[in-house]
Amino acid sequence: MTISVAIAGATGYAGGEILRLLLSHPAYLSGELRIGALTGHSNAGQRVSELMPHLPQLADRVIEDTTPEILAGHDIVFLGLPHGHSAEIGRQLGESVTVIDCAADFRLRSKEDWDAFYGGEYAGAWPYGIPEVPGNREELKGSNRVAVPGCFPTTITLGALPAVAQDLIEPELSVIAITGVSGAGKKASVAQLGAETMGNLKAYKPGGTHRHTPEVLQNLQPFTQQPVSVSFTPVLAPLPRGILATITAPLKGGVDKRTVAEAFRDFYADEPFCLVLPEGQQPETQNVVGSNMVHIQAHVDERARRLVITAALDNLCKGTAGAAVQCMNLTLGWEETLGLPQAAVAP
Amino acid sequence: MTISVAIAGATGYAGGEILRLLLSHPAYLSGELRIGALTGHSNAGQRVSELMPHLPQLADRVIEDTTPEILAGHDIVFLGLPHGHSAEIGRQLGESVTVIDCAADFRLRSKEDWDAFYGGEYAGAWPYGIPEVPGNREELKGSNRVAVPGCFPTTITLGALPAVAQDLIEPELSVIAITGVSGAGKKASVAQLGAETMGNLKAYKPGGTHRHTPEVLQNLQPFTQQPVSVSFTPVLAPLPRGILATITAPLKGGVDKRTVAEAFRDFYADEPFCLVLPEGQQPETQNVVGSNMVHIQAHVDERARRLVITAALDNLCKGTAGAAVQCMNLTLGWEETLGLPQAAVAP
Amino acid sequence: MTISVAIAGATGYAGGEILRLLLSHPAYLSGELRIGALTGHSNAGQRVSELMPHLPQLADRVIEDTTPEILAGHDIVFLGLPHGHSAEIGRQLGESVTVIDCAADFRLRSKEDWDAFYGGEYAGAWPYGIPEVPGNREELKGSNRVAVPGCFPTTITLGALPAVAQDLIEPELSVIAITGVSGAGKKASVAQLGAETMGNLKAYKPGGTHRHTPEVLQNLQPFTQQPVSVSFTPVLAPLPRGILATITAPLKGGVDKRTVAEAFRDFYADEPFCLVLPEGQQPETQNVVGSNMVHIQAHVDERARRLVITAALDNLCKGTAGAAVQCMNLTLGWEETLGLPQAAVAP
Amino acid sequence: MTISVAIAGATGYAGGEILRLLLSHPAYLSGELRIGALTGHSNAGQRVSELMPHLPQLADRVIEDTTPEILAGHDIVFLGLPHGHSAEIGRQLGESVTVIDCAADFRLRSKEDWDAFYGGEYAGAWPYGIPEVPGNREELKGSNRVAVPGCFPTTITLGALPAVAQDLIEPELSVIAITGVSGAGKKASVAQLGAETMGNLKAYKPGGTHRHTPEVLQNLQPFTQQPVSVSFTPVLAPLPRGILATITAPLKGGVDKRTVAEAFRDFYADEPFCLVLPEGQQPETQNVVGSNMVHIQAHVDERARRLVITAALDNLCKGTAGAAVQCMNLTLGWEETLGLPQAAVAP
Repeated sequence: MTISVAIAGATGYAGGEILRLLLSHPAYLSGELRIGALTGHSNAGQRVSELMPHLPQLADRVIEDTTPEILAGHDIVFLGLPHGHSAEIGRQLGESVTVIDCAADFRLRSKEDWDAFYGGEYAGAWPYGIPEVPGNREELKGSNRVAVPGCFPTTITLGALPAVAQDLIEPELSVIAITGVSGAGKKASVAQLGAETMGNLKAYKPGGTHRHTPEVLQNLQPFTQQPVSVSFTPVLAPLPRGILATITAPLKGGVDKRTVAEAFRDFYADEPFCLVLPEGQQPETQNVVGSNMVHIQAHVDERARRLVITAALDNLCKGTAGAAVQCMNLTLGWEETLGLPQAAVAP
Repeated sequence: MTISVAIAGATGYAGGEILRLLLSHPAYLSGELRIGALTGHSNAGQRVSELMPHLPQLADRVIEDTTPEILAGHDIVFLGLPHGHSAEIGRQLGESVTVIDCAADFRLRSKEDWDAFYGGEYAGAWPYGIPEVPGNREELKGSNRVAVPGCFPTTITLGALPAVAQDLIEPELSVIAITGVSGAGKKASVAQLGAETMGNLKAYKPGGTHRHTPEVLQNLQPFTQQPVSVSFTPVLAPLPRGILATITAPLKGGVDKRTVAEAFRDFYADEPFCLVLPEGQQPETQNVVGSNMVHIQAHVDERARRLVITAALDNLCKGTAGAAVQCMNLTLGWEETLGLPQAAVAP
Repeated sequence: MTISVAIAGATGYAGGEILRLLLSHPAYLSGELRIGALTGHSNAGQRVSELMPHLPQLADRVIEDTTPEILAGHDIVFLGLPHGHSAEIGRQLGESVTVIDCAADFRLRSKEDWDAFYGGEYAGAWPYGIPEVPGNREELKGSNRVAVPGCFPTTITLGALPAVAQDLIEPELSVIAITGVSGAGKKASVAQLGAETMGNLKAYKPGGTHRHTPEVLQNLQPFTQQPVSVSFTPVLAPLPRGILATITAPLKGGVDKRTVAEAFRDFYADEPFCLVLPEGQQPETQNVVGSNMVHIQAHVDERARRLVITAALDNLCKGTAGAAVQCMNLTLGWEETLGLPQAAVAP
Repeated sequence: MTISVAIAGATGYAGGEILRLLLSHPAYLSGELRIGALTGHSNAGQRVSELMPHLPQLADRVIEDTTPEILAGHDIVFLGLPHGHSAEIGRQLGESVTVIDCAADFRLRSKEDWDAFYGGEYAGAWPYGIPEVPGNREELKGSNRVAVPGCFPTTITLGALPAVAQDLIEPELSVIAITGVSGAGKKASVAQLGAETMGNLKAYKPGGTHRHTPEVLQNLQPFTQQPVSVSFTPVLAPLPRGILATITAPLKGGVDKRTVAEAFRDFYADEPFCLVLPEGQQPETQNVVGSNMVHIQAHVDERARRLVITAALDNLCKGTAGAAVQCMNLTLGWEETLGLPQAAVAP
């Protein structure tokens, strides 16, 4: 049997990255997976060769309109649409279609959070696509609905979780996550011009105002009895891809360097995409770009008695499209790592 | 009378930036200030045209060796030397010479801090070159010795001071300061290659290990009765110039958005180089590059009850050379702002 | 008497750069020059603090609408408007106002060229703002109309002119000019997003299709009896500011390295903003950014018998705003170099 | 049978990229290909985890010294060494070992060229690794020695060849090739610092002085009766990877747009890694980064009667490591495209 895959919003950055990954996926190379409809809102009728010349294998494909009719009939549908639009399309696809949504619509389990940070109709919550968070993998296997997490929540959650879950810190997190510019998507805007972003560093949506804040809290709270707080500020930096999150929190009494190192190493010992770096080595985004990896380090600031966790990933790959493909593998009962690079395109 | 100025380490980034500023300084343009000896360690004998083609006015100058003999006889000597070397040269220059040191040698008032973070012989402390810190300006006026602060301490101190001094926060600071690559100086190294730094984000010397940590503490502690702690982690980002510091700390009870906004605005109301931005506007490094300004914002994270301060400056200008020239103006009894741009080279 | 200056299109990159230069212009600092109306199309009513936070001195100024009424009554009006709009406004300003237009409307002396490359109504030609081209300076002095040249034509003309005018080459030029992204202006577009321009090199409007082509020909043709041809292709590169033009052409018989070096050096011997670099040293855009300089080198390719000229300038400064201010100085009978930096903001 | 592969100079950029490609090569994934010794000069004894954290699969491998003894005994040896060193090692490896050299030692067929551009002992010439140049593929199949071409010669040759071989131009080429900074290798140097290369454009080794010049001539001359000349100037631009070459030459009489378009399309019709773009679309380096593709466009400048060819590739992939793996596939009699991505990591 051949699995057919459609991508809605195929010409955006998430869509393009899903395609890049699928094109080297063993199931695609063996013919077991077929790339079906590619849809786009404003680009319908144009060829892939014009819109995504970096995917020459698909050059002659024509972008179709994003409608439930065109998407239905595929086994897997990836949604790379603006939030709101995702929920609308998602709702119209039957149970026989596995829907993997890269937008925010189905991420939050609390209607209250949705109302506070997004607004508009609340669509509910789907199994959440960070398999490395204990409990999630089991839910994702065989599910026909997946909410792919935000790129910041993935970085912050995977960085902070070993410390929160193993009681190393007071769970009052201060997070600065620096992101490359592709995170803003492929939409024309003055603030995102090359001239405004090169040679520039800029915080935006500071402390408590970014929509990814409740998603991080939702991920971490189940792992501690103490109330978790997260003050998260994103910073825009001049690189195309990559997120580096720095997470600091007060160390609990008695926790030392060695406890921390072991706790982090053990936590991800069996995770193929989470690499806790050797002592003294810091994550760098160039070492994860193009790959599905998260590189993590935890450092004890002895004087200030704080834990300083750093985590790096590629916002478009492990932060979006790689997670989506990883989840696809799980929903299909395939090996989770299929088609997902561990080696990065460095330098 | 003409003031003569020499620069030791003239071919480094700090030296070059001091020269750029002096060349448009009104006193230089009017002939009141004369640029004398330019010295360098390994470049002695070479022309400025080869080494710093961006300073065409000085093209035919020849770099001399860095010796006390060559430097003595000038009214002002800027030292842009590695730490250790600065102290050695500084010690040999008489009281008639005003010495403005851009290295770390004379910054720390505690020998203990020096031993813990630098090591080697402790040289003592000179008047400290952030005029905007209350008390410093008076010390700098008429002094013949100045310790120019580090680029990170300037950014963090000026960002945090209004909050610490006005009791807005518990002084337990978590600081992530992102810097452009010129901060590492003009020394060959694999880690600082373009190929290793473009397209890359990387934390280094995390929490408590960077030498600028005790300098920040020294600046802030006098302004509160509570013990200050600072967990500071620098991050290297792909831009030539600029620092963006994000400083977070727990808000004190009862402190709200309005108190914070007023406290910050009032604190710097009379400072020509400290700009507290209008509400909702974040500092961007592109808006300070080439200028002597610090742009500052303070944001209240209501949910996490933390204050999120952001501060941006040009590490080579206000972070080093601009501060040095600002202090020169003060030591000479000139107007403090002379020759120091407030407008930045954006974009 | 105080000279009053207005800027139409003040919030664009050209307008912002004119303001940056004026703010450190000696006439502004002495009160002889006053910055009057700042106008903008879509930003009317907003404050400079929001739109151009890099110009803190003007923070409280409010942008007015771009109308002839608001602009009239100033001594100097700079136009930083899209072409077409410039002509329309320019036509409505009386002879008592000196108009310095940064758009293309009044650059071309041939209606045919205008029709072929721009279209729409032909507005005529004004004195052309490269004072370094023999003949132009005299025309500009005392003129009340100036057409500021395009950034590419300035670079290419100043690079090629010594060779064309002194008969060193067959005037069949192949030109590749690489530009930073600010050249595209402050207009939202997907192609100019940071994500599309960082980490990317891309030629556009290749050989003969870019509108600056006839402008280059118009500049060079008067200096040789032979028909000049220029095949010009621009390339977009990931930096905010800067143009590097490489110009190659067949060497004339008998021309050697030494002839070339002398011819170039002599040609610009008295020009304060044209620097022919020492032998073996290549222009770098970082050495001209923020300054009004053009750095030039001419290299003899002995094997291929071609001359390889390289020229670098800052597209926003000498390429636009610096030229505009240089021309303002000339029209006012002031010293041409006033307020125009020769030193660059490097690195 | 398992093929064993060793890499000398594994910790350089070429070595790292060969490893990245091998790690996703189907023969590696199936166990048919084994990664053996990884050697390095100064890094012997260190772990891959420290030196190349972007290759987590090899984290625990230890770098060995680069000696013929360690390399011998493998079926394939890739040499990623400085020129000179390559020849020395290459000479000591027996005929049973297939040696694929990424340095210049065995590229030039003329001792005279070698003497003029490199000097030192001439080592001879091996089959040359651009399979797309007619004649080469046959020589490479089954060969046990391969000279991998320079990154510039690959770009320029593949761009210019259709025009030279099909008599579209007078073969007097003016070439400007812009390169990312990884081309300079992983060697500490001031000129290659991030601070010196970001925000900067700079030509170097202009017209006729770069060592890749004779290699281009050697590739093109066999395809025309006319003497070929190439004036080649490289330019360094601020991006990690990618080359964009622009090649211009006088059009032959009667050659028009349509002839050109067809000639280019036909020439590469069967080449999986050479993509002639649709009319009006220019190559962009972001569309080839991480892939083994060359994107090519040919534009007719009607006014200047010149052909303007643009070609883009990833200097580390198709420009070096990708070509090396492509040649390995050929020497082993495997399908040429195995393990070589056509899709790029964009943006």
